[in-house]
Amino acid sequence: MPTAEQFQKIIEPLFPGLMGVEVKEATQAKVVATMLVRPDLCTTDGICHGGAYMAFADTLGAIGAVMNLGEGQWTTTIESKTNFFAAVPAGDTAKAECTPLHRGRTTMVWQTRISRGDGKLAAIVTQTQLVIASR
Amino acid sequence: MPTAEQFQKIIEPLFPGLMGVEVKEATQAKVVATMLVRPDLCTTDGICHGGAYMAFADTLGAIGAVMNLGEGQWTTTIESKTNFFAAVPAGDTAKAECTPLHRGRTTMVWQTRISRGDGKLAAIVTQTQLVIASR
Amino acid sequence: MPTAEQFQKIIEPLFPGLMGVEVKEATQAKVVATMLVRPDLCTTDGICHGGAYMAFADTLGAIGAVMNLGEGQWTTTIESKTNFFAAVPAGDTAKAECTPLHRGRTTMVWQTRISRGDGKLAAIVTQTQLVIASR
Amino acid sequence: MPTAEQFQKIIEPLFPGLMGVEVKEATQAKVVATMLVRPDLCTTDGICHGGAYMAFADTLGAIGAVMNLGEGQWTTTIESKTNFFAAVPAGDTAKAECTPLHRGRTTMVWQTRISRGDGKLAAIVTQTQLVIASR
Repeated sequence: MPTAEQFQKIIEPLFPGLMGVEVKEATQAKVVATMLVRPDLCTTDGICHGGAYMAFADTLGAIGAVMNLGEGQWTTTIESKTNFFAAVPAGDTAKAECTPLHRGRTTMVWQTRISRGDGKLAAIVTQTQLVIASR
Repeated sequence: MPTAEQFQKIIEPLFPGLMGVEVKEATQAKVVATMLVRPDLCTTDGICHGGAYMAFADTLGAIGAVMNLGEGQWTTTIESKTNFFAAVPAGDTAKAECTPLHRGRTTMVWQTRISRGDGKLAAIVTQTQLVIASR
Repeated sequence: MPTAEQFQKIIEPLFPGLMGVEVKEATQAKVVATMLVRPDLCTTDGICHGGAYMAFADTLGAIGAVMNLGEGQWTTTIESKTNFFAAVPAGDTAKAECTPLHRGRTTMVWQTRISRGDGKLAAIVTQTQLVIASR
Repeated sequence: MPTAEQFQKIIEPLFPGLMGVEVKEATQAKVVATMLVRPDLCTTDGICHGGAYMAFADTLGAIGAVMNLGEGQWTTTIESKTNFFAAVPAGDTAKAECTPLHRGRTTMVWQTRISRGDGKLAAIVTQTQLVIASR
């Protein structure tokens, strides 16, 4: 299984890299990452764009699923649901912790809690990953 | 009400600008935009990152809500749900069309259909916008 | 493939039967049913309970999926999302129309629009059905 | 604020009463209830109908919201999302525990975990309640 550092290298040239996602921890039971809320990740009013939260979380859920795949398996996100609770201001660092709600043979469900620097819960993202047999 | 060109100027320095979203049409009943799937919007395998779809759609839903606000009102996304159907490959241009399912006094619900260059439906995103009285 | 009448017989002793669901049409592309909003399907204030809408729709999505299964396949709902728009009063008859958003080999996604007797849209339910190979 | 016994009396003639929901605990921070999975709450194969889980949970989320309303306020469910993990067989008693993810002035978000008699997690339902000022 890849380490957090290896996932970081994989995502650098990809969308999570563009957003500045930093993978801090990646185990089969938990994925942790941070993201500095740069002005170009914001919507109007200088707060983090809702889409940036969702993309941040989607990245962690996919990493969590990959950590639990068997030999020759692959995974894809089939659906994702977000509830937004609080705005994260530009300049703050959002932290995401992703844990599994379900790890089955055909599907896995991962839930990511995104919090602000002051610890307040900003959003919860729940996504279903389909487990695909070797292609 | 802002025009598509004015929304484009507003989003340029923000997250949709970072992703290259181009607003093509913005009326009270429909918002249309395109997004070139650059390599840095992708996940592994050279396909558009799920989070990029969601951020793309979230932008349109917010524009649609803004188009329907009254004097002094504001809006925020309170929840968003995505179903993914097909991958959009790097180099392709994704097109999103967003229309209202509900436009009430307190909430609006907008649905965005994202399709690929070949017309195939790639994802549907449904989001709820809270309508907030003047601050 | 079962007919609407056959589905009706199947559901009679089950939860949709308890609720009084009447299957009117069942094809591979559309399922239609009605449900009289009896007082014992309501929440306080004499309006249809949100859970009754969801159970009504879930029934149609499952029928739609069954209509599209291959030999020896089975299906189960893995997730469901509802947006509520308008209340349906006791004594009214709710009508549901369910159509596919996606019919893949591994998953299908069905969307049900529930409307009131006066034609107003009351709720939209979108659910993902997993397609399971023969047991 | 009503007690669990008072909520039980309120729901008896309504949809949760039809399903046999028993409210065991109702505080501002948690609502607990049980539901015997009778054959007429099932789908084919003798397992609890997905809609019965959703209606069961919706009831608890609404009670939780009511427990937190101010003078003259009311609440309505605006959206609900369910992930299904395991089947609950007929004859088993499902238990639901509902806790708040967010209690704001305009919206509340409640999450219900439904488990089987053997303790296995069967489903998670997350719903948004709109808080409405006195009519």
